[in-house]
Amino acid sequence: MSNDRTMILGMHLGNGYGSQGAAWRFPGVDPANYASFDAQVRYAQAAERGKFAFLFLPDFPGLQGDLASESPQITLEPMLTLAAIARETARIGLVATGSTTFNEPFNIARQFKALDVMSHGRAGWNAVTTSDPGAAANYGQTIAPRPERYQRAHETIQIAQALWGSWQRDAWLQDTAAGRFADPEKIQPINLQGQHVASRGPLPIPPSEQGQPVIFAAGGGDNGIELAGRYASGVIGAAFTIEDARSQRAAVRDAARRAGRDPDEVKFFAGVMPAIGPTKRAALDRRVRLGEHSAPARVSYLGSMLGLALDARQLDEPLSASQLTIARASEFDPRSARALEVAREGWTLREILAHGVIDYHPTPVGTAAVTADHMQEWFEAGACDGFWVSIDVNEDGIDTFVDEVMPILQERGLFHHDYEGSTLRDHLGAPAQYGLDPRVS
Amino acid sequence: MSNDRTMILGMHLGNGYGSQGAAWRFPGVDPANYASFDAQVRYAQAAERGKFAFLFLPDFPGLQGDLASESPQITLEPMLTLAAIARETARIGLVATGSTTFNEPFNIARQFKALDVMSHGRAGWNAVTTSDPGAAANYGQTIAPRPERYQRAHETIQIAQALWGSWQRDAWLQDTAAGRFADPEKIQPINLQGQHVASRGPLPIPPSEQGQPVIFAAGGGDNGIELAGRYASGVIGAAFTIEDARSQRAAVRDAARRAGRDPDEVKFFAGVMPAIGPTKRAALDRRVRLGEHSAPARVSYLGSMLGLALDARQLDEPLSASQLTIARASEFDPRSARALEVAREGWTLREILAHGVIDYHPTPVGTAAVTADHMQEWFEAGACDGFWVSIDVNEDGIDTFVDEVMPILQERGLFHHDYEGSTLRDHLGAPAQYGLDPRVS
Ligand SMILES: Cc1cc2nc3c(=O)[nH]c(=O)nc-3n(C[C@H](O)[C@H](O)[C@H](O)COP(=O)(O)O)c2cc1C
Ligand SMILES: Cc1cc2nc3c(=O)[nH]c(=O)nc-3n(C[C@H](O)[C@H](O)[C@H](O)COP(=O)(O)O)c2cc1C
Repeated sequence: MSNDRTMILGMHLGNGYGSQGAAWRFPGVDPANYASFDAQVRYAQAAERGKFAFLFLPDFPGLQGDLASESPQITLEPMLTLAAIARETARIGLVATGSTTFNEPFNIARQFKALDVMSHGRAGWNAVTTSDPGAAANYGQTIAPRPERYQRAHETIQIAQALWGSWQRDAWLQDTAAGRFADPEKIQPINLQGQHVASRGPLPIPPSEQGQPVIFAAGGGDNGIELAGRYASGVIGAAFTIEDARSQRAAVRDAARRAGRDPDEVKFFAGVMPAIGPTKRAALDRRVRLGEHSAPARVSYLGSMLGLALDARQLDEPLSASQLTIARASEFDPRSARALEVAREGWTLREILAHGVIDYHPTPVGTAAVTADHMQEWFEAGACDGFWVSIDVNEDGIDTFVDEVMPILQERGLFHHDYEGSTLRDHLGAPAQYGLDPRVS
Repeated sequence: MSNDRTMILGMHLGNGYGSQGAAWRFPGVDPANYASFDAQVRYAQAAERGKFAFLFLPDFPGLQGDLASESPQITLEPMLTLAAIARETARIGLVATGSTTFNEPFNIARQFKALDVMSHGRAGWNAVTTSDPGAAANYGQTIAPRPERYQRAHETIQIAQALWGSWQRDAWLQDTAAGRFADPEKIQPINLQGQHVASRGPLPIPPSEQGQPVIFAAGGGDNGIELAGRYASGVIGAAFTIEDARSQRAAVRDAARRAGRDPDEVKFFAGVMPAIGPTKRAALDRRVRLGEHSAPARVSYLGSMLGLALDARQLDEPLSASQLTIARASEFDPRSARALEVAREGWTLREILAHGVIDYHPTPVGTAAVTADHMQEWFEAGACDGFWVSIDVNEDGIDTFVDEVMPILQERGLFHHDYEGSTLRDHLGAPAQYGLDPRVS
C-alpha cells in the first residue's frame, strides 16, 4: 500500500492522569487532576498542537475499579469536560461516549448538538449500548438481552439523527430588517415512534458548521459491527495483532457495504499505548516504575498466558531454561503470543509486564522511532485507518508523542502537517449528513 | 425593617438576547447570539462584575413560541452553557433548571455535581417537574397527573442528594507516597429504590468546594411549595404585587418550618424586569421600540384586563374619557390593577404596554433610581430576600443595571460591595449539606 493516504489520529482522554493505573502517583503528576478541568484542557491543547483529529472519551455511568490503589479510568463527566475543551481549543474533534440504553434520545441529541454548535462543528457521539450491570443498577435496572439493547440503540441513534435534522439548514433566517427570526416551515417535528423510545421534536438547536455530530461506534460482536456499518464514521477498535485488526476492519467495511454505504466512509482506529524513551532501557524503566505496585498481582495472570505457574517471588528474574521449554501461548488471550515472544528475549517477569503484554493496547517499547515503525506497519498492512493513542502519563507523555513520534510520521509522509479543515467531518473525511439521510446537506 | 440584611440578586440568563421578545433584532444585538456561547459568557461576566449571586437559567426540553417573529426564550442547552461560563467566571453562582420528570436521577446528579466541581462549588439545580405537554411528547410521553410528577420529583431529588453524598468528604486521599488513591470504605452505594426511580451509586465524583450543589425550586401550588420547603435554598418566584410576593414567601417559609428547617435558609426571589433610561421618557421609548411589532396583537388582551374592547387602531391614543369611566381591573390577571393605574395616567395604549403591564415581571420604568426604589420597597416590605433580574436586552442592559442601579442600592446599604465568599452556598447563606442530611458536612 502506498503512502498516498495518511493516518488519522485520535487521542484517548480519560481520568486526567493517563492510561496506566499508577499514572496518578507518577512524579510530576498532580494527584488532584481527577477533578481538574484545567488539566484536561491542557492535555487537549497538547493534542491539538499535535494535529490530532479528535479526542476520544470512553464513558460508562458508574464507578469501576479498586479505588484503594488506582484512580477511576474515565472523566468525571464527558459532556462537561468536552464543553470546557470546546471553548479552549479551535480545531480538534470532540468525541464522547454516551449510552443508548441509559439516556433518552431527546436529551442525548440535544447535548451533543449543543456541543457541536459550541465547538463550531467538532462533536462526535460514540454510541454504545452499555453492558455493565453496575451501570444498569445506577438506574435501578438490569442489563437487557443484547437484541433488545441493540434495538433500542438503533432507535435512539435514528431519533437523534432525525432531531439533528429538524431544523433545515436554511431555517434560521436572522432577518432583523423583516423581523423574521426563522422560517417555521423549515423547523419540523420528527414524530418517530420506536418500540423502546420515541420523540416528537423539533430540537431547539440550529445546524452547526458540520451540520450535525458524527457517529462513532465501539461495540464488538455482530450487533456492534452492524450498528457501526450502518451509522458510524469512526470505529474505536481494540485489537492486539495486525491480523485481528484487519479482520475487524474488514468486518466493519463489509457491514457498511451491506448498509449501502461506501466503506471508505467508515474509519477504523486501532489502539496503541506507546512506551517511549531515549533508549529502549529508558522506555522500559518508565513502565517498570509505573508497574511497580501492580506487577506482583499480575504475575499469576502472566503465567496463565504462558501455560506456567508463576508467582511474585520470580518477579525480578527471567523465565528459567526449563520454563522457557514448556511455555506455550494461551489461546484464550490474544496477547499471549506477544508475551511469549518478549519472554524469550530473556527479560525478567517485571520487564515482560513492562512491555505492556497484558495492557489494554499493543505497546511498542523504545525510542519514538519504534512507535512510528509500529504505526507504519499496522497502517500499511491495512489494519487500520489510524489510531487512537493512549498515553501512559499525560502530563509529559502527550508532548513526547507530539514532539518525537509525529515528526517521524510526517517525514515519512504518513501524517498531515496541519488540519486541512475545521470540522470533525473534515478531519475524518466523513461526508455531509443532515438528519437521518446521509449525504443530504 | 432595617437594612441590616442585604438583598441577594440573581440574573436571568436565557436565549442570548434578553427577555423582551424583540431583543434579537434590537440595534447593536447580533441576531446570531442564540447560538453564541461567547455572548452568554460575556453576559455572565457582566453579571459577575456586578456581584450578582447567581445566574438563573430557565429550561424546558422542547421548542416553544412563534419562531417566525420571535426567538426561543431559553438557552440552547443549560448545562453546556453553564460549563462554558464556569470556566470563564470565578465567583458567580450557576443555577440551571432541570426536569425531574424527564431525567434519570443518576444522570442529573452526575452532571450537576460535575458542574459543581468544575465551578469550584458554584452549581445549583432548579428542580422542576415540567408540566408542558410538548416537552413530554419529546420523550414519547404525556404529562402525568401532578401527584405522580411530584412523587417522582421527591424521589429524584433525594436520590440525587444521596448520590452527592456517596463520597464522604475525606474519602479522596490522593496519598501518592502510600499509594492510596481513595478510601473505599468512605465511598459507598446508596441503594435507594423509589416508586418511580432508583439508583445504587456511588457517583464517580468527589466533593466540591461547597460539598454538593444547592437545590432551587420554582413550582407554584401546594405541591411546589412543599417541595421548596423541604429541599430548596432558593425559590424562583413570580409575583406582580408586594402582597402576592409576601404571601408566596410566607408559604414557602411555612413549608420550610413544617419540614423542620429554619425558614431563613430558604431565600425567596421576586422577579423584576427593569426599563431604565436617563429619563422616564427615554426608558419608555426603549420599550416602545422593543414592542413595536408585538404591540398591535397585544391590544385586545390589554382590553380584557381593563374590561374594554380595544383594538389596534387606538394604539397611539390614550383611553378616552368614557373608556376610563368604565375601565375595571380584571380579577383574572394579577397585573390588571397596575395596567389600570398606568392607563389612568393618560398614556397611549402603546405606552401602557411599554410599561410592561402584560410582561412576565413587574417593570419599574424610569431612571435607575426608579428601579432601585422598586427593589427597596419590595425588599423592605418583606416581599422577598432578593430578586432575579430579567434584563430586556442583555447587550447593553446588564451593564446599565450594574453601573447605574447597583451603586444606588449599595449606597443605600441594600446590596453588598463584593462577594463575601466563593461558593453559591456562601452567596446564599445556605448551610452546609452533604448527602441527604442537611447540616452534615
Ligand atoms: C475499544 C472499545 C471501547 C469501548 N468503549 C466503551 C465505553 O467507553 N463505554 C461503554 O459502555 N462500552 C464501551 N465499549 C463496549 C462496547 O460498547 C460493548 O458494550 C462491548 O463490546 C460488549 O458488546 P455488547 O454490547 O454487544 O454486549 C467499548 C468497546 C470497545 C471494543
Ligand atoms: C418563576 C417560575 C419559573 C419557572 N421556571 C420553569 C422552568 O424553567 N422550566 C419548567 O419546566 N418549569 C418552570 N416553572 C414551572 C413550574 O415548575 C411548574 O411546572 C408550574 O408552576 C406548574 O406547576 P405544576 O408542576 O405543579 O403543575 C417555573 C415556574 C415559576 C413560577
